Amino acid sequence: MPRFAFLIEYDGLPFHGWQRQAEGQPSVQAALESALARLDPDGPLVTGAGRTDTGVHATGQVAHADLARDWDPFRLGEALNWHLKPAPVAVLDVARVADDFHARFSAVERRYTFRLVCRRAPVTHDKGRVWQVLNPLDVPAMRAGAAHLVGRHDFTTFRSSICQAASPVKTLDEISITEHLLPSGAEIRFHLRARSFLHNQVRSIVGTLERVGAGAWPPERVAEALEAKNRAACGPVCPPQGLYLTGVRYPVDPFSGGFQ
Amino acid sequence: MPRFAFLIEYDGLPFHGWQRQAEGQPSVQAALESALARLDPDGPLVTGAGRTDTGVHATGQVAHADLARDWDPFRLGEALNWHLKPAPVAVLDVARVADDFHARFSAVERRYTFRLVCRRAPVTHDKGRVWQVLNPLDVPAMRAGAAHLVGRHDFTTFRSSICQAASPVKTLDEISITEHLLPSGAEIRFHLRARSFLHNQVRSIVGTLERVGAGAWPPERVAEALEAKNRAACGPVCPPQGLYLTGVRYPVDPFSGGFQ
Repeated sequence: MPRFAFLIEYDGLPFHGWQRQAEGQPSVQAALESALARLDPDGPLVTGAGRTDTGVHATGQVAHADLARDWDPFRLGEALNWHLKPAPVAVLDVARVADDFHARFSAVERRYTFRLVCRRAPVTHDKGRVWQVLNPLDVPAMRAGAAHLVGRHDFTTFRSSICQAASPVKTLDEISITEHLLPSGAEIRFHLRARSFLHNQVRSIVGTLERVGAGAWPPERVAEALEAKNRAACGPVCPPQGLYLTGVRYPVDPFSGGFQ
Repeated sequence: MPRFAFLIEYDGLPFHGWQRQAEGQPSVQAALESALARLDPDGPLVTGAGRTDTGVHATGQVAHADLARDWDPFRLGEALNWHLKPAPVAVLDVARVADDFHARFSAVERRYTFRLVCRRAPVTHDKGRVWQVLNPLDVPAMRAGAAHLVGRHDFTTFRSSICQAASPVKTLDEISITEHLLPSGAEIRFHLRARSFLHNQVRSIVGTLERVGAGAWPPERVAEALEAKNRAACGPVCPPQGLYLTGVRYPVDPFSGGFQ
């Protein structure tokens, strides 16, 4: 059976995360499988690169599925987008891939961006799409705190207690923090890059760095928290709605660079 | 009575535009007047700089109102944002201004941005916040077409038939067009700046330039349309949901530069 890879964007707001849930709880995986079932009598299963939590968004999720027949990739993408309506899920690109391509296990890098808005006035256009805090944050202090986390470490402190990964040791290749002035206040974006992440790792890191930015934690306390290898040493886990899975990298990019 | 100026952001999606409407039709002006009525027994009226249409957004609308008592501007903004909830309207800044400050008549410049997304796959996060077209557009051709419109002209062609302005002659100080690559497709932003605009002028211009970008109109046809001084010579008026009032300029900026 021919295997296809999909580049996927979604608004996480109405979904109970990526993974298929009990009946009646919408998930992105189930939305894609329902759309595929309209095209393929076998009801193909979909496997994603990253299992995003409830409320988390994606602009560059990747998934694969085996279909009964050999579709033209462009026509398959068009048909899927048609059947996905009105769910806020869009297939951006489709590629025919080798049978040993696996969206999750073949991935060599994942990228996440977390959007945080600092201002007093409530957000309007970006409601449900950013985390809002009411006070300005010290970006250089957050960068100093973040620098302690880059590299290969035991991230037990920054991992959910229900994380199922075999090992808490991960290599974090990048945390960069950019600041964008708004008409009032500022948006701060955290860009994280690693081969793979632990459950809640990004939200645990961003929640901790916010404490540093607010002046409640000195930057060195991030290093102490990491060394403690103890979940209790973590700062508060920040809410999901500012988090975006922005990209997944493979040894060879399966996509041609845009479905249009 | 002390006069206050307000810097205002809103999502135009749920509103029948800026202006107060018949009972039961929500407008941004009515939302602000309802919130002010909770704070001031006189039920102050609100005057805005730009009367945005149904579905049009703002990140930098300015309005003024006369209140019964002399509020601290910060506390007034906090109280208004509290009473505006859950409407997607936010007061970004408040300033005490001179009695002769008028949000509409004192303004010397308005700035609008129109967001257009070119891609096949439906938009997810930006639904209701951009105009989507399915094919790529030729940005240099649109820039060549736009160049014919900059300066002082009779804009009869690019004006709604219900426009109430005394004269169709306006000076357009700027149309700049920027392109931003997306994971799939591109976002094109049109930035327009003038002392004032005619009704539907921005949407008439952007709709016409889209025809140029799609290759249906040569850029010179924009000059011919302008010279025709005839509404029938205009391209199709584009939809409202990509349009944002981003700023209003006064001889002296009434705001301190951020409410936080």
